[in-house]
Amino acid sequence: MRSEYCGVLNASFIDQEVTLCGWVDRRRDHGGVIFIDLRDRDGVVQVVFDPDAKENFALADKVRGEYVLQVTGKVRARAAAAVNPNMNTGEIEVYGTALTILNEAETIPFPLDSYANVGEDIRLKYRFLDLRRQDMQKALRFRSKVTSAIRNYLDTNGFLDIETPILTRATPEGARDYLVPSRTHDGKFFALPQSPQLFKQLLMVSGFDRYYQIAKCFRDEDLRADRQPEFTQIDIETSFMSQEQIMSITEGMIREVFKDLKGVEFGELPRMPFSEAITKYGSDKPDLRIPLQLVDIKDLVTEVDFKVFAGPANDPKSRVTALKVPGGNDKLTRKQIDEYTKFVGIYGAKGLAYIKVNDKSDLEEGLQSPIVKNLPLPVRAAILERVNAENGDLIFFGADRHKVVTEALGALRCKLGADLDLYTAEWAPLWVVDFPMFEEDDKGNWSALHHPFTAPSCSPEELSANPGAALSQAYDLVLNGTELGGGSVRIHTSSMQQTVFGLLGIEEDEQREKFGFLLDALKYGAPPHGGLAFGLDRLIMLMTGAASIRDVIAFPKTQSAACVMTDAPGIVDELQLRELHIRLRKKEQAAAAQAAE
Amino acid sequence: MRSEYCGVLNASFIDQEVTLCGWVDRRRDHGGVIFIDLRDRDGVVQVVFDPDAKENFALADKVRGEYVLQVTGKVRARAAAAVNPNMNTGEIEVYGTALTILNEAETIPFPLDSYANVGEDIRLKYRFLDLRRQDMQKALRFRSKVTSAIRNYLDTNGFLDIETPILTRATPEGARDYLVPSRTHDGKFFALPQSPQLFKQLLMVSGFDRYYQIAKCFRDEDLRADRQPEFTQIDIETSFMSQEQIMSITEGMIREVFKDLKGVEFGELPRMPFSEAITKYGSDKPDLRIPLQLVDIKDLVTEVDFKVFAGPANDPKSRVTALKVPGGNDKLTRKQIDEYTKFVGIYGAKGLAYIKVNDKSDLEEGLQSPIVKNLPLPVRAAILERVNAENGDLIFFGADRHKVVTEALGALRCKLGADLDLYTAEWAPLWVVDFPMFEEDDKGNWSALHHPFTAPSCSPEELSANPGAALSQAYDLVLNGTELGGGSVRIHTSSMQQTVFGLLGIEEDEQREKFGFLLDALKYGAPPHGGLAFGLDRLIMLMTGAASIRDVIAFPKTQSAACVMTDAPGIVDELQLRELHIRLRKKEQAAAAQAAE
Repeated sequence: MRSEYCGVLNASFIDQEVTLCGWVDRRRDHGGVIFIDLRDRDGVVQVVFDPDAKENFALADKVRGEYVLQVTGKVRARAAAAVNPNMNTGEIEVYGTALTILNEAETIPFPLDSYANVGEDIRLKYRFLDLRRQDMQKALRFRSKVTSAIRNYLDTNGFLDIETPILTRATPEGARDYLVPSRTHDGKFFALPQSPQLFKQLLMVSGFDRYYQIAKCFRDEDLRADRQPEFTQIDIETSFMSQEQIMSITEGMIREVFKDLKGVEFGELPRMPFSEAITKYGSDKPDLRIPLQLVDIKDLVTEVDFKVFAGPANDPKSRVTALKVPGGNDKLTRKQIDEYTKFVGIYGAKGLAYIKVNDKSDLEEGLQSPIVKNLPLPVRAAILERVNAENGDLIFFGADRHKVVTEALGALRCKLGADLDLYTAEWAPLWVVDFPMFEEDDKGNWSALHHPFTAPSCSPEELSANPGAALSQAYDLVLNGTELGGGSVRIHTSSMQQTVFGLLGIEEDEQREKFGFLLDALKYGAPPHGGLAFGLDRLIMLMTGAASIRDVIAFPKTQSAACVMTDAPGIVDELQLRELHIRLRKKEQAAAAQAAE
Repeated sequence: MRSEYCGVLNASFIDQEVTLCGWVDRRRDHGGVIFIDLRDRDGVVQVVFDPDAKENFALADKVRGEYVLQVTGKVRARAAAAVNPNMNTGEIEVYGTALTILNEAETIPFPLDSYANVGEDIRLKYRFLDLRRQDMQKALRFRSKVTSAIRNYLDTNGFLDIETPILTRATPEGARDYLVPSRTHDGKFFALPQSPQLFKQLLMVSGFDRYYQIAKCFRDEDLRADRQPEFTQIDIETSFMSQEQIMSITEGMIREVFKDLKGVEFGELPRMPFSEAITKYGSDKPDLRIPLQLVDIKDLVTEVDFKVFAGPANDPKSRVTALKVPGGNDKLTRKQIDEYTKFVGIYGAKGLAYIKVNDKSDLEEGLQSPIVKNLPLPVRAAILERVNAENGDLIFFGADRHKVVTEALGALRCKLGADLDLYTAEWAPLWVVDFPMFEEDDKGNWSALHHPFTAPSCSPEELSANPGAALSQAYDLVLNGTELGGGSVRIHTSSMQQTVFGLLGIEEDEQREKFGFLLDALKYGAPPHGGLAFGLDRLIMLMTGAASIRDVIAFPKTQSAACVMTDAPGIVDELQLRELHIRLRKKEQAAAAQAAE
């Protein structure tokens, strides 16, 4: 029905006849002539109907916003004064010689050219209109290009795209599963996969050597801004490759995608051990665009009378840390400091001590701070020296249990970076490596920092002897403070897997029942293998600079996990429930019946 | 860990040192030397360890089937007598100089080189081993190549890969939905999509112009040999294209895939109206590899005394048809004819009349048949002439309600084709077009032959006036008697959509409740659009010649919709059910409790 997309037209088409299809972006009368901005996937072009062509003019006069048109006409240069340098097609216009109205349109519920005063609820209810906006069009088109580039990279590198099941058994990732009642197996349920983890490992046991899948994954968790009930993962697994090789081939993919689609050359990505990330940045996904660092001062304050510092300083499970903001004296008001005190409270910090360095040569009077009077002069001097303070700097302090200080000051560091726009680079990717195998909960139980299939860097004996000290062969790719992806070399022997299950408190019966097929698979000739998964939604969000993950997903759910457009989830017939061998609990039955009325 | 894949080695590698990783396919001692066939994704190569290299030899001696090895060695030519022309690597072998056992393997539960005596249940339970078989490796690798080729074709043609939700609202395709209870919305349920039909139409309303997705779809139906609870669809939708253009661009895709991956040139696909397919082949997916055709003889037998024929011949809803098997007299025994009589019974036929043409010049004695005595000589002559019978032919007859005759003789035609190996071609693709909009059920209600979003070839007025006569703009691509895919131009105006809903007996309230968002979308400037979906699993099954759809899916379900490997579906905690606001019905509760013990 068309000869060209609207957005591609330019001066090279002048004097050609073209046929276009699209939507009326804008229509206006001007000096007795009708101007229509016609929009399609590729852009907008101006079409002119003048009264000389009576029939067309009459039709064009009926046209309203969002009508769907087919237009034939001749491309001509615009008058010099009418050239619009902000439009790709701004040098030309189409002189319309034929017009067909393919479909009419009622007035749409919100304007497409402005987000002002358009709530996200109405955007999501009329998602099919919201998706007409240029930035939604761009984001989804960009997403399609990224997946295509990723697939090409992986195809070229010998990876096979293999589909794994969506209806499967409860997975051990730890989040809540979405369940699907079985009709043919009374009282039993499928689970939707939180990731294809075990299936991809089994594919390695099968000898497929290199696997990938752009896979839908599901987690029934309460949603945060960057979470959705279903999300998409670039899922990768390989056999006979070392940690180094796996990192190298997947880093190659990310670098290629950024180079081809953003024109950004990352170069070789830096590596940082987990311990350094926690110590210097208070996070296992440090945002290296921000030049601030945490500096531990525990050893400097063990002897002071000030209990807020001395208590944690003498507790092996606690941490005392300084975070210097260069020039912070001028940049931060008292009010902001109060807000930051509240902010670190979210992470459990009981306060936010600080020192303003007015004159570092005068340790008595030159430091302005609610706490400095509690610190002897030599300690003041040592702290200033440790953080390399200059006049005008502001130093924040955290002193509490290790986890609290790390999380609070890590988050404060990022908040300062954003509030004061301290970013020194647009992109800061890195690998975080050398993760511990386990973390200990408050009750002294071990849990897996990654997942229980991650291989340790040591022997089973060393692992059993000192689980807390063991490092894993896991690695995370971090970009601008966001975890883009992570993975590990996997355990490939049944004995090591059982050792790890044992340390995690999973009894043999439970091992057999939940993971019998994995333990079997590891016994029948499992190759050394490992892999990784990237979050596609987050990758696209970062690459497009979208504010929300919902802006890079065609039909996202709301924060309460609903689709306001299709009105999902919905009410279901009693008959269907009966076939599935389930019934609603009483309260819900009543509520559903009411809603159905 | 490797320098080459095993299967790529050939004479060009002679004298090179290589490092290989893989599985022990076979190990044997021969004249004091150990031969190991090492297998990886690409194939098998023979590795030789001789006793001169003591340490390696001792290790190689410990090796058993399916052990995972890393081998370094030098490629050398085999002795002329030892060359194996059946192996890609048969001209060479690797003289092993270093050996590492990467993992041991217990004796696997069934041999990989033969399907004999290996039940599908055990194959599915140990799917990770079953997938090591060469034909499973080939099938999944081929599948990966096909999807890659399809994506490349669609990317090149400007289609955007856009993901649609898996957690959605009940879809109107008519099959049973899989349901997912919502935790955050008491008593409500998501449905897994039977297809992304409405979402892809909405994407057209949004202006994406060309969409595709290789999409997981779900139907909770009782399974046949070629059905799975979850299946994969190549889902396509376009705007501003005519039926002809949509068929042309998707036909191009199928032709390119067959050319590139099977070396088969289809040429332009033939078209056949639905009515012709039903009349001549008794099927809307005719297998054109089989040269047999149905020939209607209704007009010849209206006057005969033989009620079996005359009854249907005088009933407008019935059909009387002949199916000639050339040379069938010799090819088909009495016993086979009895079996075919049973076979057509499956489709409701009450018998299977036939005539053996021994001597067509002798209408009295030359025709051997249980029914011929009921037919006057001129009728006998007319039938023989109509079907163009020759001596030695066998003619089957069907006389019953239209549906029964069509289905029974259509199926018999295919069975004869297979039993007698009548195929005249390896591939017979075609388009079936000009489908009716509706079919009438026994109660006189209309239902949509495709789905209720399919556009008719006529105006709303003509449609309402005579729904039974209306044709749709639908099209199916059929290959070798299997429906590979189908689609249609969609309704793009709200008024036409409401007309069709009305004819289907969907009241306005229900239209609004179930399809309100679609009707809205059609009001706000929907472009003319249409598309199609191909079944990927079936396409791969046909292309690989696999016997079952399960042989082209990595982790399929059994016919009772279970995964015997992971033991899914499984039993679920009471706590989880409580969070989802559901409980098991009593009987199932008891059964589940018992199973949990």
